[in-house]
Amino acid sequence: MEHHKLEGRAKMVLIHIDDNDMWEGEPLYEAIVKRLRMMDVAGATGYRGILGFGAKNRVHRSGLLGFSNLPIVISVIDSEEKIRSVLPTLKEMISEGLLAVVDVDVIKYTSGKPHQ
Amino acid sequence: MEHHKLEGRAKMVLIHIDDNDMWEGEPLYEAIVKRLRMMDVAGATGYRGILGFGAKNRVHRSGLLGFSNLPIVISVIDSEEKIRSVLPTLKEMISEGLLAVVDVDVIKYTSGKPHQ
Amino acid sequence: MEHHKLEGRAKMVLIHIDDNDMWEGEPLYEAIVKRLRMMDVAGATGYRGILGFGAKNRVHRSGLLGFSNLPIVISVIDSEEKIRSVLPTLKEMISEGLLAVVDVDVIKYTSGKPHQ
Repeated sequence: MEHHKLEGRAKMVLIHIDDNDMWEGEPLYEAIVKRLRMMDVAGATGYRGILGFGAKNRVHRSGLLGFSNLPIVISVIDSEEKIRSVLPTLKEMISEGLLAVVDVDVIKYTSGKPHQ
Repeated sequence: MEHHKLEGRAKMVLIHIDDNDMWEGEPLYEAIVKRLRMMDVAGATGYRGILGFGAKNRVHRSGLLGFSNLPIVISVIDSEEKIRSVLPTLKEMISEGLLAVVDVDVIKYTSGKPHQ
Repeated sequence: MEHHKLEGRAKMVLIHIDDNDMWEGEPLYEAIVKRLRMMDVAGATGYRGILGFGAKNRVHRSGLLGFSNLPIVISVIDSEEKIRSVLPTLKEMISEGLLAVVDVDVIKYTSGKPHQ
């Protein structure tokens, strides 16, 4: 791992998709997070929302059985250069959705040893 | 729908309220998301937090039965002009809470056909 | 309480940790939120993600029993001066994780009476 130093100006990407979007047989949000990790991005976190609407013009709602068709947001933080290098992949994987980038200042980033 | 082009500089509003705030007999967060959709905003996503405090000076905690009195955050993304046009409505609907605006760059926004 | 006026330029801190990180016998995310409230910060909200990776180089996943080892993000909003005053405490409490700061404009902040 090489991200021992990520302090200072950086970028956060916010990816808005649905939890039932698929990519090659698996949930798109899982495929995106795995891909970002393979590309050695400093960090990514996925959240499931409780309602929303967006690119597909729907109001998402949790159904009777819980988790069908809810919004997912994945936030990704790394240097501007690294973020620029992963955007083409993200654009390709996300056919419907919203991708936005925010300026951030990284104050602390500790890359510890992997836990098992 | 008209949001086929939302790329470039835009704004994200972050609305912080409680999940037990009400608006005309329904949860405020649902009322806000419905209103934003009626106003043809590009996208909005609501999340439920697990703890927090804020405008009401409380520490939220999930109770024994789960979801009572937890923080809700709604993120809303659209052009600066559109966001400016909805802020008065949001300010009116939110009597206690925190409304903050963040600069974002929209890299991709795909407005697909509505799903049924 | 003194936060009746927090409008205008402000800062949001995004704290990325794990839900099994501990601090003096309690979950770190609870300890951080309590500490921020003691320090009279305007607002903080904690979220639990559904997957992710970061400082510890792991892909988080919810296990069979639900909530083990998932990402937590805490967002904290206050004036630049106040945020600067709490960063040393946050850096001390967070041994592994990512701390990032974002510029925000606070449009409305209503500090109501505490509810019981």
